[in-house]
Amino acid sequence: MVRLKGFRKLTPIHEALQKFFDQLKIGKLKMVTVSVHQALNRALAEDIIADKDLPRFDRSAVDGYAVRAEDTFETSQFKPKTLRITDGNEVGKKQAKQVWTGNPISDDANAVIMLENTKRINGEIEVWVPVTPGENISKRGEDISKGEVAVKAGTRLKPQHLGLIAALGITEVKVVDKPKIAILATGNELIEIGRKPERNQIFEVNRLILSALCQELGAEPLDLGIAKDDVNEISEKLRVGLEKANAIITTGGTSVGASDLVPAVVNSIGKPGVIVHGIAMRPAMPTALAIADKKPIIILSGNPVAAMIGFEVFARPLIYKMLGLKHEFRPVVKAKITRRVSTVLGRKSFVRVHISQCGEEFFAEPVSTLGSGVISTMTKANGYVVVPENRGGLEEGELVTAHLFGSIEVVDGNV
Amino acid sequence: MVRLKGFRKLTPIHEALQKFFDQLKIGKLKMVTVSVHQALNRALAEDIIADKDLPRFDRSAVDGYAVRAEDTFETSQFKPKTLRITDGNEVGKKQAKQVWTGNPISDDANAVIMLENTKRINGEIEVWVPVTPGENISKRGEDISKGEVAVKAGTRLKPQHLGLIAALGITEVKVVDKPKIAILATGNELIEIGRKPERNQIFEVNRLILSALCQELGAEPLDLGIAKDDVNEISEKLRVGLEKANAIITTGGTSVGASDLVPAVVNSIGKPGVIVHGIAMRPAMPTALAIADKKPIIILSGNPVAAMIGFEVFARPLIYKMLGLKHEFRPVVKAKITRRVSTVLGRKSFVRVHISQCGEEFFAEPVSTLGSGVISTMTKANGYVVVPENRGGLEEGELVTAHLFGSIEVVDGNV
Repeated sequence: MVRLKGFRKLTPIHEALQKFFDQLKIGKLKMVTVSVHQALNRALAEDIIADKDLPRFDRSAVDGYAVRAEDTFETSQFKPKTLRITDGNEVGKKQAKQVWTGNPISDDANAVIMLENTKRINGEIEVWVPVTPGENISKRGEDISKGEVAVKAGTRLKPQHLGLIAALGITEVKVVDKPKIAILATGNELIEIGRKPERNQIFEVNRLILSALCQELGAEPLDLGIAKDDVNEISEKLRVGLEKANAIITTGGTSVGASDLVPAVVNSIGKPGVIVHGIAMRPAMPTALAIADKKPIIILSGNPVAAMIGFEVFARPLIYKMLGLKHEFRPVVKAKITRRVSTVLGRKSFVRVHISQCGEEFFAEPVSTLGSGVISTMTKANGYVVVPENRGGLEEGELVTAHLFGSIEVVDGNV
Repeated sequence: MVRLKGFRKLTPIHEALQKFFDQLKIGKLKMVTVSVHQALNRALAEDIIADKDLPRFDRSAVDGYAVRAEDTFETSQFKPKTLRITDGNEVGKKQAKQVWTGNPISDDANAVIMLENTKRINGEIEVWVPVTPGENISKRGEDISKGEVAVKAGTRLKPQHLGLIAALGITEVKVVDKPKIAILATGNELIEIGRKPERNQIFEVNRLILSALCQELGAEPLDLGIAKDDVNEISEKLRVGLEKANAIITTGGTSVGASDLVPAVVNSIGKPGVIVHGIAMRPAMPTALAIADKKPIIILSGNPVAAMIGFEVFARPLIYKMLGLKHEFRPVVKAKITRRVSTVLGRKSFVRVHISQCGEEFFAEPVSTLGSGVISTMTKANGYVVVPENRGGLEEGELVTAHLFGSIEVVDGNV
């Protein structure tokens, strides 16, 4: 019997995402409390409110002498003034109190004169540079005032956020639990890496790639293994995924061949099932998005490159939503395409490019427009350019916006 | 007694780095063998050479029928041709063999015709779109040929590299051991977070920040705790660091005050000691670079922002060298400065900015030019602009190059 040939209709990416997220009610993931020492890259679940001013007191920003600014007015190298050093807590008129960076400044002093602008002679200092009121003082609350939001919920905690939280004396934070993403590969031709392949067998690498991509974003991958192109086997493994994970990602079996069973099996295990199947993009056209038991299922192509691009476009925003994070856009760079690229009209094309910087200019070299199974196009590339549906390609020398997933190679501008 | 006032000479950053790395012979770190499942973000220690072609055989890039291309020449919707379906391994003249994506193609076939361009009627298919020789076939070795370097030593392993390595059937890789970086904070005013501070005490947060920065780069932080401004205590802790770690980073006690003991103590514990002290930069001017027992010691300011910028400029390239990695430059973006910024002539200034994208334009809002102790300038910023020594600032509207350490905020272009 002949199956459906090709897709009757391809859905544009934005429409597919809209439909998917409209129907998907992402339940709040559990919050967990972790030490600030374990919180790097976690998603903050609740606002951190400053319970005190930071700094807690006016303090010196430099090494020097706390003084009354008025006492230094009109000094110069030719007209130095002399101030008496005090050891007390207060700084009187024409007095100076030695302070180091970070030391509190008492209310009667209003400026700090830097050590290098003074000369100490017995119990006095000679001053020849005037200071203005407030100079070299970090005012109480200058960093954060009591009651202010120090770090917003939905922030991915980077070293500087941890520093600010710790500076408030806070040792534990509430973060969103890592979403568990179950990952299943399907295909009769697939074997585990490390095994000895028969002539027509292929090492299964998508689970490894997708797990790593999940980890990079702060999700926890859960391995469902490899399923043969068999309804029962796929169905059984998907059920395990639905039970144990917050989302499922599958690869393979999503095209329109006789062995492309995944969308049908997904439809059979939960409602509403497949929401969209067939996206107006290249690669990753046979991607499907589904929901079963209120859990998202992203059905990716078995081709590694298509799976990676499908993950980028669909799984990445999903994981951000699950973590309650604002989407983090990849860095972009305007670069000149070094040669002509043809793309297919009616599909959004993701052209892998190698971006290099030469002097002040950026160049994007298309890595290959070969098949989406060619993983080395992803290792040679450090970014991609999106060509819209209404264009058949890019012209040589055209200025494009490249999205970076690796670091830019810097080529000596003088060569 | 009066100590040295200020630095007699400030060294430009590039000169400081040059001196430091010229004298520092970075010993090869141990190699360790890890599973590809544990290798994400590790530094590859040896080239991965393909021991086989990838793909290992000519295979179909689509679902369809393997044919001899000649048999499809001159077909059209009005002039279809008919091919007989074969179940054998060979594809004879005027025959077609059904294949799914990834299936091997035997030598006698030279193209695959897509399923959607055929119509199956009993034991035959009708074909109306011609294919050219090689069409829809992934050729053996198209991805990587046997003997080729698949991934170069000195590569940080990202998901796509792991995928390529696994596709060759390789399950373990040799990576560079994580460099151990001992981290010490010094200062009488410092207390551990979680304790109750007295009036003039400050929570010590630099170790937390620097540990997180080390982890992000793939180094392993080792906590040396807090030392009082005391020669013996600092010296003792530094010795522990030299013994247990590959490098040491300290913060605090590096200015020119009476309690700024760290450079002197470093000089006393090993040769050649301090190489440079006082850098022509802002913040992080009092940074010192030292070597003792052939191990690098980076002496950072106690101000959290200065410590972070000092880490960026000096510790980051050091860690890349220790890992044997090519330096990864931060993504850059050309942005318009939204308001005037003043900087100090003769110093390279690191101005923290918040970069946003509005339509096609990028804007960099200076976050603050306040003291380098203000951590919130780092949490509000997502990048920095480097102002050269020979400029006194940036003009409003000036196009600058911003280095990104966070993701760009996208503002609706229509607002």
